[in-house]
Amino acid sequence: MNTRFWVEYHLTGSPKETEDMAKGIAIEQSVGLPLQLVASGFLQDEILGRVEDLKVLNDQTSYVKISYLTESIGNELTQLMNVLYGNISLWKGIKVIGIELPDPLKAYFAGPRFGIRGLRDRLRAPVGPLLMAQVKPMGRGTHELAELAYRFAIGGIDLIIEDHMVTDQTWSHFRDRVFAISQAVQRANSKTKGNCVYVPNVTSSPEELLLRADWASRYGAGALLVSPGLTGFDSLQRLSQNRRPGLPIIAHPTFLGSLMLSPNQGIVPGLLLGTIFRLAGADCSLLPYAGGRFGFHEEDCQSVIEHCQQADLLLKRSMPALGGGITLENLPSLHKKYGNDVIYLLGGQLYGISADLPENVRQLRRVLERET
Amino acid sequence: MNTRFWVEYHLTGSPKETEDMAKGIAIEQSVGLPLQLVASGFLQDEILGRVEDLKVLNDQTSYVKISYLTESIGNELTQLMNVLYGNISLWKGIKVIGIELPDPLKAYFAGPRFGIRGLRDRLRAPVGPLLMAQVKPMGRGTHELAELAYRFAIGGIDLIIEDHMVTDQTWSHFRDRVFAISQAVQRANSKTKGNCVYVPNVTSSPEELLLRADWASRYGAGALLVSPGLTGFDSLQRLSQNRRPGLPIIAHPTFLGSLMLSPNQGIVPGLLLGTIFRLAGADCSLLPYAGGRFGFHEEDCQSVIEHCQQADLLLKRSMPALGGGITLENLPSLHKKYGNDVIYLLGGQLYGISADLPENVRQLRRVLERET
Repeated sequence: MNTRFWVEYHLTGSPKETEDMAKGIAIEQSVGLPLQLVASGFLQDEILGRVEDLKVLNDQTSYVKISYLTESIGNELTQLMNVLYGNISLWKGIKVIGIELPDPLKAYFAGPRFGIRGLRDRLRAPVGPLLMAQVKPMGRGTHELAELAYRFAIGGIDLIIEDHMVTDQTWSHFRDRVFAISQAVQRANSKTKGNCVYVPNVTSSPEELLLRADWASRYGAGALLVSPGLTGFDSLQRLSQNRRPGLPIIAHPTFLGSLMLSPNQGIVPGLLLGTIFRLAGADCSLLPYAGGRFGFHEEDCQSVIEHCQQADLLLKRSMPALGGGITLENLPSLHKKYGNDVIYLLGGQLYGISADLPENVRQLRRVLERET
Repeated sequence: MNTRFWVEYHLTGSPKETEDMAKGIAIEQSVGLPLQLVASGFLQDEILGRVEDLKVLNDQTSYVKISYLTESIGNELTQLMNVLYGNISLWKGIKVIGIELPDPLKAYFAGPRFGIRGLRDRLRAPVGPLLMAQVKPMGRGTHELAELAYRFAIGGIDLIIEDHMVTDQTWSHFRDRVFAISQAVQRANSKTKGNCVYVPNVTSSPEELLLRADWASRYGAGALLVSPGLTGFDSLQRLSQNRRPGLPIIAHPTFLGSLMLSPNQGIVPGLLLGTIFRLAGADCSLLPYAGGRFGFHEEDCQSVIEHCQQADLLLKRSMPALGGGITLENLPSLHKKYGNDVIYLLGGQLYGISADLPENVRQLRRVLERET
């Protein structure tokens, strides 16, 4: 097709330095050879990255836009990440801030299978903000975790995810736990006539992840938690595109922090947790709340939420889930700021309000309803 | 077994701040809950991370050693990475500088299948430094790449790897290329009576990676190139432990730069490209030469090479491969500094010496022999 796609960067350095960096990136991320060794014709004219735009923003920062031949990425997510920020991750002063893909490529990556609407259908929650609780910590036994889940579900929580540190460990093996928690949540749902959804953590090696996802689906899980920073983005994509188990996927940002948080290196949070998670098939993207214990700023949150929710004719929208420091006190202002198409995850906080977990959930619901 | 393992960090901040950070890390990377919500007994006594050592190094840096319960990682590489640097990757000012694992855990991760000795056996190169060439750039057709490989092999190069950007693309599909290059290298070997080994790049999605590895082995590849930053570390581990195709694995650092290069965030290069690649099963670890176009310093190189070569009764040693800026001029001094158990990768440089590729290889060989 000979189409191209575009990557935008902020480069740190003097105007002269950033001009050289821009040319260097265009070479490194395509031919990877000194130009005098690159044959003229197709290699120089098409394969070689092209500096399409370069603006000096101030004496230490420039904006650069480079295009690459679409075929470079060979329809593979691993190679998309490689062209986006592969070897240049080993350089200093390069921040990837945007990407623009032609439609055929977007169609290849497919994006979320369920998206916001599909997730809401599954949760039977067509409108309004959603509340998410976490069963934790690792070290607790299966029955204790199931009991916690039961109490959250009785209180009317929308989703119960497992902590990203809860995997397959001696004190609670994955299969036993999924069975026990699914049962507990179903028992609560039949009492409340509710539709609380349980989300086990399937993060693991490539095969084991699929086995766990399958088991989880068979025993009543309603969605799956996966950490692509640990599994690789392709495991997320495969999980999303596989016909089985066909459950919505919630993606966790663990291990990806140093890729996002440096001011002049890496990939901006909106692009990584928003666009790339969405391209890879995440129906929901967990992100840290700014002001909590994580190094996220307000504009990072805004940007991830926007990239999840942005209309795109080819990719479904994904649901942002905000966690890592939400409390009874800041929930109203967050809800006002970010609106209804957001999941609010209360981790430890939901345990801390009082010892009565169902009542804690009800209290949060009342806070949100008062705000709606 | 109730054994523990140790992680060492450099923390950035005042002595008071780093003391608080150390306690915070011990909590975040284990229970992930405020301490008053963590039940006494097993959770507080065993699961909770323990600050075992804390030394103020200067008014902006402290050294901290924290131990975690071995069972926390549940014998999974994904979870080892998660405990090592999962959610705290989203904090600022934490650099992971060391890890110490008990033997049972090391035995679980197995490490390189071939190691330096096994790799040398396959190459029939029992002693001396090794030379590696790269077929590149992407965009060149299969037959042109095969012709390049033939000329490198005729010159007596030890290994020919594919560039990490050469994957499965319209201008050279993986299977055609592997077949053609294998044939070309075999043809050269039969002329020279040499044993040049061809290393195709199998980096891809989890299933496709295995299919490509299998195909590569069947058609005469002698080792495999994989980029764990793109595939996830578990895909590397699985490739190493699978009975088929049973080839040595060379791991490439693409996409991992921002995890290593910030002075006060991430994981130090020696630990990541040395120890962790080795634990995951890499027989050889590619690392950027300090002084080339990458942001690596001399001590980073030293440290990766040491971590690859360090004696360990349980894990085989892995072979460091130095690339990204090696030339005819600096090769002698690098050889003097790093010795014989190193592969020297000449990417573009090998093309640049002259248009006579076999002669370029011979010239490099002569340089190394003069130095030995």
